[in-house]
Amino acid sequence: MLETVSNIRVRYAETDRMDVVYHSHYFVWFETARIRLLDQMGIPYSQLEAQGYHIPVLAASAEYNVPARFDDRLEIHLRMNEKPRARFDFLYEVRRSGEILATGKTVHAFMSPQGKGLRPPSQFIEKLDAMWLKSTSTQSPG
Amino acid sequence: MLETVSNIRVRYAETDRMDVVYHSHYFVWFETARIRLLDQMGIPYSQLEAQGYHIPVLAASAEYNVPARFDDRLEIHLRMNEKPRARFDFLYEVRRSGEILATGKTVHAFMSPQGKGLRPPSQFIEKLDAMWLKSTSTQSPG
Amino acid sequence: MLETVSNIRVRYAETDRMDVVYHSHYFVWFETARIRLLDQMGIPYSQLEAQGYHIPVLAASAEYNVPARFDDRLEIHLRMNEKPRARFDFLYEVRRSGEILATGKTVHAFMSPQGKGLRPPSQFIEKLDAMWLKSTSTQSPG
Amino acid sequence: MLETVSNIRVRYAETDRMDVVYHSHYFVWFETARIRLLDQMGIPYSQLEAQGYHIPVLAASAEYNVPARFDDRLEIHLRMNEKPRARFDFLYEVRRSGEILATGKTVHAFMSPQGKGLRPPSQFIEKLDAMWLKSTSTQSPG
Repeated sequence: MLETVSNIRVRYAETDRMDVVYHSHYFVWFETARIRLLDQMGIPYSQLEAQGYHIPVLAASAEYNVPARFDDRLEIHLRMNEKPRARFDFLYEVRRSGEILATGKTVHAFMSPQGKGLRPPSQFIEKLDAMWLKSTSTQSPG
Repeated sequence: MLETVSNIRVRYAETDRMDVVYHSHYFVWFETARIRLLDQMGIPYSQLEAQGYHIPVLAASAEYNVPARFDDRLEIHLRMNEKPRARFDFLYEVRRSGEILATGKTVHAFMSPQGKGLRPPSQFIEKLDAMWLKSTSTQSPG
Repeated sequence: MLETVSNIRVRYAETDRMDVVYHSHYFVWFETARIRLLDQMGIPYSQLEAQGYHIPVLAASAEYNVPARFDDRLEIHLRMNEKPRARFDFLYEVRRSGEILATGKTVHAFMSPQGKGLRPPSQFIEKLDAMWLKSTSTQSPG
Repeated sequence: MLETVSNIRVRYAETDRMDVVYHSHYFVWFETARIRLLDQMGIPYSQLEAQGYHIPVLAASAEYNVPARFDDRLEIHLRMNEKPRARFDFLYEVRRSGEILATGKTVHAFMSPQGKGLRPPSQFIEKLDAMWLKSTSTQSPG
């Protein structure tokens, strides 16, 4: 398992006249969480794209339980439960002071700029393996 | 069953550097489709809100098969398979020249501005019943 | 002089918690007006880009007098007072039932995808000249 | 004079197919800079709104010199040259590694939720005066 936490502060531009965050913006926050995970792995997404790898969003979903509001300080918890194969998932929780406001999931694959499916680059696999082990060992002290 | 079709032309602002529509914008298009359905039912959403009814998005999902691109003329097909109870669903297809680019679903409920669940207003139920019958009768000529 | 009118219906996603349209969205509406003008000239912007011409925004401004609101039907009036040279301007008015809600201006130039300044393509000049004359003759009945 | 610096990292969602940041997003960054200034003054914008003061954008402009790109780390420099009266201005510079990519300006006023002009709250004036003096004294050692 892999996990990372990103911090978001709700922008005025992200609210709507219902005085809550418009639902589509959560998907942008999810993006910032993915970007951060790749940073932590040592392979920034901009670098992957420069090497010819795109990671488009193939599917995306969210459940909204409690509305986020203007100026909220939120935590985006991103989790990866299984190592990526052809397709892989990221799971999200949006939390405010511990409370889970929303959950989400996105599905991805490595692709060429022309949209052809690619195997994950070996560098990605290695970095992921390294983090996975470390993450697992810290989390199962038993 | 209930169905409506809305037309969308992809804005430059909706594209990203991958030269496709950024995935979160589809959820905004879904919104325009819902607005249009309520128009056709004779109860514009702005009127519902003025009467104290909100219809927030409780869950949203999309699957992206073929990317939409700048200046594409798209059809958003919205379908309602079951009459609304406490919660109700809308189903979407994004089509370009007949081809289905993406599908989606949103889940909703009627709520007060304070977030309390409400029964659908009777006016809504009546209009829906009227359209439902008409829609069903035109579609099953057998 | 050249003029065109585009119709916009305010999306829920474009509102903010002040119950008005968030100010940055007007610039997206201005884009749709420019796209429409190029359509009417017979040289869609997507075609210009395919030929290697970009028309980036070099400057943009707006003055907001009366707020636009959810579901408003707006007219975006776009005007070009002078024929394009190296740089050229578009002027905008956002109107609701005749009332001017906001005005704006954007400054542009033709550029290569690499950001090098280019002369306007001859096709563009010709189409513009044709529309300009027609527009002027209809508007000055003398 | 008053000055503050905010840090922005460019989101994928903010880019367009020209592989640069779509111009309207700069205005959202300007918002984050204003929010931050009010934080530093000790009167968060959310608190002002809770007290019945809105600070809408009456006018906004930007000049784009060098495009910002995906994943750029930017600094938004906000400056206030004159103390607010009925109307007041904020000036912006968007910098990347010292280089000025864009400049901007927004014009504001204090208003009631109903859009009536209000005098700046006394708390705002006091905090501003305090920061102004401190800022001036640190900057003119002569």
